Amino acid sequence: MSQEAILLAHGSGGKLTHDLIRDVFVRHLTNPVLDVQDDAAVWALPSSPETRLALSTDSYVVQPIFFPGGDIGKLAVCGTINDLAMVGAKPLHLTAGFILEEGLPLADLERIVASMAQTADQAGVKIVAGDTKVVDRGSADQIFINTAGIGIVLQGVDISGANARPGDVVILNGPIGMHGLAIMSQREGLSFSFPLHSDCAPLNGLVAAMLRADGRIHCLRDPTRGGLATTINELAAQSQVGIKLEETAIPIPESVRAGCELLGLDPLYVANEGKLVAIVPPEAELPLLAAMRSHPYGQEATTIGRVTSAHPGRVVLHTTLGANRILGMLTGAQLPRIC
Amino acid sequence: MSQEAILLAHGSGGKLTHDLIRDVFVRHLTNPVLDVQDDAAVWALPSSPETRLALSTDSYVVQPIFFPGGDIGKLAVCGTINDLAMVGAKPLHLTAGFILEEGLPLADLERIVASMAQTADQAGVKIVAGDTKVVDRGSADQIFINTAGIGIVLQGVDISGANARPGDVVILNGPIGMHGLAIMSQREGLSFSFPLHSDCAPLNGLVAAMLRADGRIHCLRDPTRGGLATTINELAAQSQVGIKLEETAIPIPESVRAGCELLGLDPLYVANEGKLVAIVPPEAELPLLAAMRSHPYGQEATTIGRVTSAHPGRVVLHTTLGANRILGMLTGAQLPRIC
Repeated sequence: MSQEAILLAHGSGGKLTHDLIRDVFVRHLTNPVLDVQDDAAVWALPSSPETRLALSTDSYVVQPIFFPGGDIGKLAVCGTINDLAMVGAKPLHLTAGFILEEGLPLADLERIVASMAQTADQAGVKIVAGDTKVVDRGSADQIFINTAGIGIVLQGVDISGANARPGDVVILNGPIGMHGLAIMSQREGLSFSFPLHSDCAPLNGLVAAMLRADGRIHCLRDPTRGGLATTINELAAQSQVGIKLEETAIPIPESVRAGCELLGLDPLYVANEGKLVAIVPPEAELPLLAAMRSHPYGQEATTIGRVTSAHPGRVVLHTTLGANRILGMLTGAQLPRIC
Repeated sequence: MSQEAILLAHGSGGKLTHDLIRDVFVRHLTNPVLDVQDDAAVWALPSSPETRLALSTDSYVVQPIFFPGGDIGKLAVCGTINDLAMVGAKPLHLTAGFILEEGLPLADLERIVASMAQTADQAGVKIVAGDTKVVDRGSADQIFINTAGIGIVLQGVDISGANARPGDVVILNGPIGMHGLAIMSQREGLSFSFPLHSDCAPLNGLVAAMLRADGRIHCLRDPTRGGLATTINELAAQSQVGIKLEETAIPIPESVRAGCELLGLDPLYVANEGKLVAIVPPEAELPLLAAMRSHPYGQEATTIGRVTSAHPGRVVLHTTLGANRILGMLTGAQLPRIC
C-alpha cells in the first residue's frame, strides 16, 4: 500500500477504519489479547490468574471542543469508561494525555479539565496519571485528548462481541443520533425547534445495574463512530451470526430525524456517546429491560432486533415499509472529527 | 489565569510544565494516587491489595518523525515502558492511540507500526489495545501517538522520587544529550564528524537487572524533556533534599558538546530517551554499578553526585573550574517537540 495515503474515512469508524486496523495494526502487532478486537482488551493478571483486567484507549479530536451536552473533556472520560464497561469491566483508573496547540486559552483548558474531573467523579473513576505536550500554532487544532483506562472484570462475566447466538435479542438503551447531530448542528450553525444535545454519558453505572439484574449478557457495544448500523455489523461479523433489526423499533428523536434530513445523513450511521447495544439470550430480555428502564441512562431501553442463524455476518433491516434490506457498515467519512 | 494562553514552554518539561500541572491538572483532578507525581501512578488492586499495579501515559509529537536512532513509534513504546520501569514496575501491556493527519503516506504509518512492534518485542511487552483518529490536513502534523502502559510492581520494591535521603549516591547509566541533539541536528540539517544518534531504548531490562543485583534503590527517573538538570531538580524537590552533582563526572559525548556549542544549548538540559538516574544508599552503589555495567544500556554507568541535607530542594553543580553554582530547572522552551 506504499502509494496510498491516509484519508479522512480511515478515521470514520467504518469500513476503511476496519481495513486499516486489519492490514496495518493487527498485522504488525498481532497477539492473542489484541486480536480479539473488543472495545477493551481483557487479560488475566500473571500473579493472580483469577483476576481479569481490562485495558482500553481512545484519542479525542472532536471539533468544536465545546458543544451542547458536553465538551472534549467529558467525551474523553465517558468514551474510555464506556469502552471498559462494554467488556463488563468496572472502570477503576484513567490516564489523560493532552496535546495542546500553542495559543489555546488557559481558561478553555481549565474548563475542559474541570469537566473531566466532574465526569470522573460522577462515574466513580479516578484520573491517576497524565501528560502534556504542546505543539506550535498550526500543528494541531486547539486540543486533542487521549484517555486510557483500566478496569476489573467481575467474576463470572463473559461479555464479548464474539458471543452472540442465534435466538438472542438485541436491546438498545435509548434514542440514537443525538451526539452526532449536536456536533454537526453546532458546526453548521443550525438550530431546530426541538432541543438537540449530545447524549454523552458514562455508562458504567448502567452496565453494573444490568449485571446485577441478570449476568447472562452475551455482547455489549457502544455505537459511537459509524453509528448503530456499523456497530451491529461489527457484532454480526465477530460472532458470525445474522442480525435482523426492526426499523420501527429503533428510537430516533424528531430533532435527529429533521437534522439528518437537512444534512443528508442516515441516523443509523450517526455517532452516539451514551448508547449501548446489548445482545442477550431471550430469557434475560425482560429482567434486563426492567433494570435498564430503572436507570437514568436506560429509561427508553427497548428491543430492536434478533440474532439469526441465517445470513451469518450480515445485518438485515426490516423497514417501516415492510421490506428487508441489507444494512452495511459505514463506507466513506460521514462525519469527520465527531469524537 | 483567564487572560493567558498556552505557550510552547508549557510543554518543555521545565518550570512552566510543572506550574501547569500544579495549577490546572492536579488542582482539578487531585487524588492520592495522582498527587504523588512519579513517572507512573502506583496503586494496590482492590481485590488483592498485595498486588500493586503501575499505570502511565505519554503522548509523542516529535518532529521529524524519523530520526537517527529511532522514530516516533519506537519513542512512544520506549517512553511509556521507561515511565513504568522508573517506579520499579515490570511493564506488561501497552495501549496505542494514533492521531493521523489526512495525507500521511500509509508506508510511513506501516514503518512506524512495525518499529513499535519490534521495540515492544525486544522489551517483552505487548500492545493490546489501540485507537485511530484522522484529522483533516493542517489540523495535526503527520502523526501523534499516545501510549499508556500497565505494569506490576514487584514485591518489596519501593521506588519513588520522594525517597532520596542525605548520603545517597546519584548514578547515571551513560552519556547524556544524544536524543535531543540527534533530533535538533536532523531538524537543522547539521552534521558532525562524530556520529550522533538518539539513545532511545527500553530500560525495563536494565532496571530488572539492577533490582536483581540490589533492591535498595530509592529513586529512579529518566531525564527526558528538560534534561538531566530538570530531572535532578524534580527529585531534590520531591524528596526535600539537596543534591550536589560533579560536572566532571557527567559523561557528555564530544558530538553532543560540539552540537550544543553550535546551537547555543546546555547539554544538561537536553532530552534523553535511554537514560536513567538512580539514587541509592551508598552501600548499594558498587553492586548496582556492577550490574548496570554488565547490561547493554548501562555499560558507561557512573556516579555523578550525592544527596545532601544542606540546601533542601536545590541542586548544586560543582563545576569543572572548581566553583559551585545553583543548577535550576529548565525555564523557557529549549527544544520544542523533542518527544
